[in-house]
Amino acid sequence: MARIVMKFGGTSMAGTERIRRVAGIVKRQQEAGHEVAVVVSAMAGETDRLVNFCREASALYDPAEYDVVVASGEQVTSGLLALTLQALGCKARSWLGWQVQIKTDDAHAKARIEDIDADALIASMASGEIAVIPGFQGVSPEGRVTTLGRGGSDTSAVAVAAAVKADRCDIYTDVDGVYTTDPRIVAKARKLPLVTYEEMLELASVGSKVLQTRSVSLAMKEKVRVQVLSSFIDEDAPAADTLPGTMIVSDEELANAEQEGSDMERQLITGIAADKNEAKITLTRVPDRPGAVAGIFTPLADANINVDMIIQNVAKEKGETDVTFTVPKADLPRAQSLLEERQEAIGYYRLIADDQVAKVSVVGVGMRSHAGVASTMFQTLADRGINIEAISTSEIKVSVLIDSDETELAVRVLHTAYGMDAPA
Amino acid sequence: MARIVMKFGGTSMAGTERIRRVAGIVKRQQEAGHEVAVVVSAMAGETDRLVNFCREASALYDPAEYDVVVASGEQVTSGLLALTLQALGCKARSWLGWQVQIKTDDAHAKARIEDIDADALIASMASGEIAVIPGFQGVSPEGRVTTLGRGGSDTSAVAVAAAVKADRCDIYTDVDGVYTTDPRIVAKARKLPLVTYEEMLELASVGSKVLQTRSVSLAMKEKVRVQVLSSFIDEDAPAADTLPGTMIVSDEELANAEQEGSDMERQLITGIAADKNEAKITLTRVPDRPGAVAGIFTPLADANINVDMIIQNVAKEKGETDVTFTVPKADLPRAQSLLEERQEAIGYYRLIADDQVAKVSVVGVGMRSHAGVASTMFQTLADRGINIEAISTSEIKVSVLIDSDETELAVRVLHTAYGMDAPA
Repeated sequence: MARIVMKFGGTSMAGTERIRRVAGIVKRQQEAGHEVAVVVSAMAGETDRLVNFCREASALYDPAEYDVVVASGEQVTSGLLALTLQALGCKARSWLGWQVQIKTDDAHAKARIEDIDADALIASMASGEIAVIPGFQGVSPEGRVTTLGRGGSDTSAVAVAAAVKADRCDIYTDVDGVYTTDPRIVAKARKLPLVTYEEMLELASVGSKVLQTRSVSLAMKEKVRVQVLSSFIDEDAPAADTLPGTMIVSDEELANAEQEGSDMERQLITGIAADKNEAKITLTRVPDRPGAVAGIFTPLADANINVDMIIQNVAKEKGETDVTFTVPKADLPRAQSLLEERQEAIGYYRLIADDQVAKVSVVGVGMRSHAGVASTMFQTLADRGINIEAISTSEIKVSVLIDSDETELAVRVLHTAYGMDAPA
Repeated sequence: MARIVMKFGGTSMAGTERIRRVAGIVKRQQEAGHEVAVVVSAMAGETDRLVNFCREASALYDPAEYDVVVASGEQVTSGLLALTLQALGCKARSWLGWQVQIKTDDAHAKARIEDIDADALIASMASGEIAVIPGFQGVSPEGRVTTLGRGGSDTSAVAVAAAVKADRCDIYTDVDGVYTTDPRIVAKARKLPLVTYEEMLELASVGSKVLQTRSVSLAMKEKVRVQVLSSFIDEDAPAADTLPGTMIVSDEELANAEQEGSDMERQLITGIAADKNEAKITLTRVPDRPGAVAGIFTPLADANINVDMIIQNVAKEKGETDVTFTVPKADLPRAQSLLEERQEAIGYYRLIADDQVAKVSVVGVGMRSHAGVASTMFQTLADRGINIEAISTSEIKVSVLIDSDETELAVRVLHTAYGMDAPA
């Protein structure tokens, strides 16, 4: 017997029929002898509808009232899933954020979970009742409704799993696991049985949409075993603990699994991700003197614009250099106008913006002990004539910026080059 | 300066534009120097949508989870109205049922309000903040979400008005007051400046849809001055306390107003209501012996079917009689099958059901001191050849059951006969 937290996203909760399917999956877990809590998202499209109402009501909306409005979507699905489980003969009840309580700070619309009172939930689960918890919502120290920001239900699920000391947190999505890369781009992409928290963090932050980054950080911090599974499985499929999803584990667990030979096929590189949400800015002929670079990046940081890849070319002419960097595509207009206002102060010659770029990243903990990952990447892309416009690296990741038209080609050739293609 | 509770129904809250209109009306009240709380319904159609989800989830749904789902409609509109008021420059915040708290019993889906913690609301209103409260919802002794039953937002408004000791509870609807009868039937119907609680109760219970019956009972018990007003007034209209709606008052207030001559035009009869939601059942040749009538009505009462008008004809033949009564049209199939199962035990000959009937009622406190109201009614209907199938009376009401085809004709001729027509 295990204690399991299951999480279902908006696509899985979109309408009566799908909720019935979810209830069937949950019921089978209970029938397998487990204690079960379920965290649910709002029906697909519902949060957008509610956010639009808020925008129409007030351009600069009060995030506390925004939270009252948007949290209702998960309230509805939690009640409906409890009703549907009851109709299948299960004991079930909903626990709203303020009932649990899921205590957050008071940063409305982007609150952080501080503590969860787990006693009532644990007692409910131990009594054979399925606890249904709306994701995304909590309650502030002042007793007001808060929400965690878009995609927050993954974080809710991991936090609940940590609070009730769950053996596993199963995240049901519209994909059936984490793949070496997007299977829509590379037909030979393979599903990974195991991924480490750090790999998942890198994959999540570079555009793999399977899990919200915050939920992965939290799982790593709280040592919650997270499994990614498909909610669109056969009605008669076995309970989830025998289904092949992707388990997200610590480095130690991965090492143990490798010793046991249960992850034999693991490659040097775990996954390849592509992200088209960045834009490139180049400032030409920036004076090569102390403080010049700070003059560029301090105003961007002050405006809360995340700068990612930065390259400072070697000085072309005496005392001048080109500076290239990336910002989120959505922030490009703001970044441009901030820098244009400061053209004289910074002293650059021209600003060149380019939003037709993509960041392609190879990720894997195996990189730590193997040299040559980056050079394989550069050589492979060069062989296909793909120009690298910028490079950034971390301990377990190498990212390159390329022309966005070449994204799919780059992902495919890298997938093959690192030996990741599934056998034909 | 007065303390005012305002209530807006689902039609008034249906969408961004209408909520903006409501916010304008509320703002003008505050600008007139009043302390203001607002009680809101869900957007028109939203509660039906949510109820349907519950029905689809489970045929015999758990009312506690039903409440979690359906209460969300008012949560959304309370947040949106607070946002819209803020956009107009007002201080405003929403107070959900569990935040106020609006304490109810635990009869989910038809809960009764037991107590309201008014201190925080009063402090909020006194500080110049507009308190926005979702109608229809409360919190049970176990800390779960409850709802008051359909139309419960009127009751919420009156209860909040009683709790904060409001000078007035203004109910904004899609009509601009209480009329002598339905203006869609009788063009010469007049708007009533004053109606007593008891008259309003009789009018509400016989089919005048302006206010929920429970809210009127509560207003009478708690001595809350209720005013019925239209929410579809001109944007530039004066604040509501100078608008001609209908004020619902006690007998004493009515008497004072009459002495002051401010309600000079008041007639013997206050209003005429028609109700097509009843059905008639006749059991022929019921044995005229002790217990026979109890054998008919006890099973109906046990099945929670409300029997209204009852006539027992004089015995036609030795030892036998016909019994006629009415039940709500929605309960007719159930009532029929209950009685058919017991045909032998009761000993009747035939059951005749008729759902093509209407109950027409004349209501007025003036009846208490004037004889002849009923005979005028019977004579007027007889003169037009309208057959009376049953009669029931209370201290301030006379109701007759007639063929439903003749409803509009009956209402019109009675309106004229009692001298209620507005001057041409």
